[in-house]
Amino acid sequence: MTLAYDGTRYAGWQVQPDRPTVQAAVEQAVRQLTGVHADVLAAGRTDAGVHALGQVAHFRTASQIPAEKLVAGLQHFLPDDIVILSAADAAPDFHARYHTVSKRYRYIIDTSPVQSPFLKRYAVHIRYGLDVPAMHAAAQCLAGTHDFRCFETDWPNRASSVRTVFEIGVTRAAGWSIWHQAGSLFAPAPAAERPFVCLDVSANGFLYNMVRSIAGTLLEVGRGRWTADDVQRLLEAGDRTQAGATAPPHGLYLMEVVYGP
Amino acid sequence: MTLAYDGTRYAGWQVQPDRPTVQAAVEQAVRQLTGVHADVLAAGRTDAGVHALGQVAHFRTASQIPAEKLVAGLQHFLPDDIVILSAADAAPDFHARYHTVSKRYRYIIDTSPVQSPFLKRYAVHIRYGLDVPAMHAAAQCLAGTHDFRCFETDWPNRASSVRTVFEIGVTRAAGWSIWHQAGSLFAPAPAAERPFVCLDVSANGFLYNMVRSIAGTLLEVGRGRWTADDVQRLLEAGDRTQAGATAPPHGLYLMEVVYGP
Repeated sequence: MTLAYDGTRYAGWQVQPDRPTVQAAVEQAVRQLTGVHADVLAAGRTDAGVHALGQVAHFRTASQIPAEKLVAGLQHFLPDDIVILSAADAAPDFHARYHTVSKRYRYIIDTSPVQSPFLKRYAVHIRYGLDVPAMHAAAQCLAGTHDFRCFETDWPNRASSVRTVFEIGVTRAAGWSIWHQAGSLFAPAPAAERPFVCLDVSANGFLYNMVRSIAGTLLEVGRGRWTADDVQRLLEAGDRTQAGATAPPHGLYLMEVVYGP
Repeated sequence: MTLAYDGTRYAGWQVQPDRPTVQAAVEQAVRQLTGVHADVLAAGRTDAGVHALGQVAHFRTASQIPAEKLVAGLQHFLPDDIVILSAADAAPDFHARYHTVSKRYRYIIDTSPVQSPFLKRYAVHIRYGLDVPAMHAAAQCLAGTHDFRCFETDWPNRASSVRTVFEIGVTRAAGWSIWHQAGSLFAPAPAAERPFVCLDVSANGFLYNMVRSIAGTLLEVGRGRWTADDVQRLLEAGDRTQAGATAPPHGLYLMEVVYGP
C-alpha cells in the first residue's frame, strides 16, 4: 500500500503503548475490515510529527478482498489524516522495509516574512535569509557512500552508520505561495518570491534523525556561519556534537520509496 | 490590521459565550499587549470553520505602541492559527465593516480521486466530476444587483437582501497539487490535472451563508442536474428552499477587503 499522512497528531509510525501512532491506526483499520489482526510494516518508521506523501507498507492477510477494494475498505475505518493512495498484491516474500532500493525525504523551510497560519504544522519557519546556492554546494559533499554518524541521534544504536546518498539538493520553490497571501492563491509566484527552501535527500537508508540533522547543519551554512569545508570536516570527524541541531520534525516528509525490479 | 486565520478551531469570528472565536483571541491579545480591553471589529464576520487570508479588523487604543510594532506585539500573544499580516494607523472614523467597498470570498472544491490528508480542513472534497464551464456560465446571471434572498439562510434577518455582485467566476486550478502526490510537490500540474475548482465572488456585501449556498447551487449545475436557466429562475423566485444546499464551511475563505479612496 502507498499511504499519505499528516503526522501532526501522531507519535510517529511505530506502535507505542498509550500513544496514537500511524501504524496502530492502520492496523486497527485492517482488523476492522478483515476481522483479524495483521502487523502492518512500513518502509520508513517516521518519527513523531513527521509527514508522509509516499509511505509504503505491507501486511499479510487471508482475506479474499481484492487489493483494489482494500483502498476504499480501509479508508472507511481510517481517520481523515491518514489516506491510502493505492494498494496492490505483492510477492509472498515482499517486505516494505527490507526490500527498498532507496527512499527520498524532503525537508521544507519557509522563509516568508510572516508565516501563513495554514503552514504552521507543515513547514519550519525561519526569520533569517538563506544563501541557497551555498547550502546546495555544501550538501554535495554528503553525496556518495560515507559514515554518517555525525548526523545520527544516538538511539537506536545501529550496526553500521555507513549509508549511500544517491542524490541531495537544496532548491527554492514557490509552490506554497498559494497559502501565502490573498492575491497569489493558486497563482504561480515570480522567482523572486519563492519563500520555500527544500532539502531533498535520496539514499539507500537513513540513520535516526539523519535528514533533520543534515537540515540543521545546512541551515548554519545558509545563514553564513559555516562553509562547505566545515561540513566536509564534520562529516570526517564523525562527531554528532559538532554538526548542526536536529531541525524540528514538522518540516520533514517521506516522499517516495523505490523498490528493485 | 489585515489578518489570516485557519478557522478550523473557531466558532467563527464573533465573540460567543464559552466558545473559542477569532475575535475573542484577538481581543485577548490586545488586552495582554496594551493592558486595556478594546473591541476589535472585523470587515467580515466569518462563520464557524471558515478561513481568512485577508480579513481586515480595527480597534481603538490609547496605546503609544506604533502600528508597525503592533504586528509582532500582538502575534506574541496570539495562537499559531491566527496571523497578523500588517497593521497601520487608520483615520479616527474608520470602521472595518461599515466602510468596505467590496469583499471577495473564494470557495474551494477538491475533485481529486483521493483527497490529500493535508487538505481535509481546507477544501471540500467531492467524488463526482464537474462541468466547470457550465458552472461559470450559470454563475454569470448572479452578477449585478439582485435580491439574493434565495441564497440567504434565514438568520440573522436583515433589512434588505439586495446586494451587488461585482464579479463572479468559477475556474479550475492546479495550485494545491503540491499536496496531491509525491512526484508533483512544488511542480506545476499539467492542465488536465487541475483538481481544484474555485468559486470567486466579489460583492458590496454578503448575506448569511450566501457564498456557501451559491456554491451548493453551482455544484448542482456542475454535476448536470441544473442548468443556467434553473439558476436564473430560482434567483427570481427568491425562495431559499429551491436553491442548492449550503456547502460546508471549510471550503470558504475571506480573501480580500477593499476600502474606498
